[in-house]
Amino acid sequence: MPLDTQAASVKYLGDRHDPRAVRHAIRAGYSGYTAGLAPGRVQANLCILPKDWAQDFLLYCQRNPKPCPLLARSDVGDPHLPALAQDLDLRTDVPRYHVFRDGKLADEVADITKLWRDDLVTFALGCSFSFEEALQEAGLPLRFLANGGAAGVYVTSIATVRAGPYHGPLVVTMRPFKPADAIRAIQITSRFPNVHGAPVHLGDPAQIGVDLDKRYRDVGSKDIGPDEIPLFWACGLTPQLAVANAKPPFCITHAPSCMLVTDLGNSSLAIL
Amino acid sequence: MPLDTQAASVKYLGDRHDPRAVRHAIRAGYSGYTAGLAPGRVQANLCILPKDWAQDFLLYCQRNPKPCPLLARSDVGDPHLPALAQDLDLRTDVPRYHVFRDGKLADEVADITKLWRDDLVTFALGCSFSFEEALQEAGLPLRFLANGGAAGVYVTSIATVRAGPYHGPLVVTMRPFKPADAIRAIQITSRFPNVHGAPVHLGDPAQIGVDLDKRYRDVGSKDIGPDEIPLFWACGLTPQLAVANAKPPFCITHAPSCMLVTDLGNSSLAIL
Repeated sequence: MPLDTQAASVKYLGDRHDPRAVRHAIRAGYSGYTAGLAPGRVQANLCILPKDWAQDFLLYCQRNPKPCPLLARSDVGDPHLPALAQDLDLRTDVPRYHVFRDGKLADEVADITKLWRDDLVTFALGCSFSFEEALQEAGLPLRFLANGGAAGVYVTSIATVRAGPYHGPLVVTMRPFKPADAIRAIQITSRFPNVHGAPVHLGDPAQIGVDLDKRYRDVGSKDIGPDEIPLFWACGLTPQLAVANAKPPFCITHAPSCMLVTDLGNSSLAIL
Repeated sequence: MPLDTQAASVKYLGDRHDPRAVRHAIRAGYSGYTAGLAPGRVQANLCILPKDWAQDFLLYCQRNPKPCPLLARSDVGDPHLPALAQDLDLRTDVPRYHVFRDGKLADEVADITKLWRDDLVTFALGCSFSFEEALQEAGLPLRFLANGGAAGVYVTSIATVRAGPYHGPLVVTMRPFKPADAIRAIQITSRFPNVHGAPVHLGDPAQIGVDLDKRYRDVGSKDIGPDEIPLFWACGLTPQLAVANAKPPFCITHAPSCMLVTDLGNSSLAIL
């Protein structure tokens, strides 16, 4: 997104702490990033597929729960997800959407009302924003956030479990910690299986086929401080790669960093 | 212990699965190791001190809960600990005791009835046997157990929190795991704070002042397999070093690997 898009759309934002107000600002024209908006509330990854492609995607999520933690699935043709927020309209409440045709990015739009079809099924997946909030509240340092950035993203050599046409590698995010903080981070994120849960790997990146200098599309920070160890969590880009491999004729997702803001409290996802 | 001591005393053992039967065998003459006896039951480290030295030791345990997880403290002069087993007699139910005078090992005996005094206070501390059982039940490999051995023991450069005359370094045990198993081991041991809980460190041993080739008294395994990472847990030898530093005029502990067998189930210690 051009920086002026972000700046130009900020005027729509009212109360940034109220998830409903944030969604209404998005509906009215805010088309920027959602990081930092409605703190404490779950933000979700979106994947919208035609009914004929939805059954296998549901199975793919079930078989790969760490990268694909399913928060809610809509009814066929229903643009609402009351489990996440009563007033939510999936056609207008995401700042920007990516439209894919035959597996290729075809368009970026701020509203999908005109693209909506009565055979569409929406999947809302948990995202690491939720556990990053819990890590911060525990006092664990996430330096990349201070710079407005994100965790480094890497494609691993680990294959996910195929379901129908959906298949591909596990994608991970990397966050570095000193060892005692790493142990704490494992404890904290274990409480949040619906937002990727505990790490899938720590230590030597080569063991999962990762070269820290080779990030996926240069996304996020690869910085590791002295005495720190890298921890790797399953990432929501995994299902996006699986969808790209499956090449459904039609698919809509959120644009990167432009998430669906829900009413759910992050803390409500903690299993203990 | 000479191997023939172990062999000679095995005749006393009846039902090795019943903790009460094991204690009675010890009372009757079994003076060997307790590893593998009364599986599923908590085995405890013992530290018996005169009343005047007990208050600060209790505080030391409170200030250093990871190396000194206190399961029970007796009343002054009482040789029983009904919280751990109704029939338990602290004077006879440990296979062998170490007697310290002015901080120095003075004797090893199989019965402390004649040494008992009405000013003695007994501390029973959790031990890693309990969480090792949970790790094994989860299918995590503990190769050193297969060889009848123990985890490697190391003195770190980390100081414990002093209480009165009790002070000294944190002692740790090392267990190696592949990264995914290491994450699982952190989750599992986090459930057992009363038996040392989660690791205190992982990865580079030098960060906690440890050289893997320099074990404390050559105790335990230093073996690390390919693709494995060392994890370090707080160890019950920590309070023993603190007692050695404090030099109480009189102190009795269990002899190494000759623990107090209790009726408590290991699984009853899980906090979740």
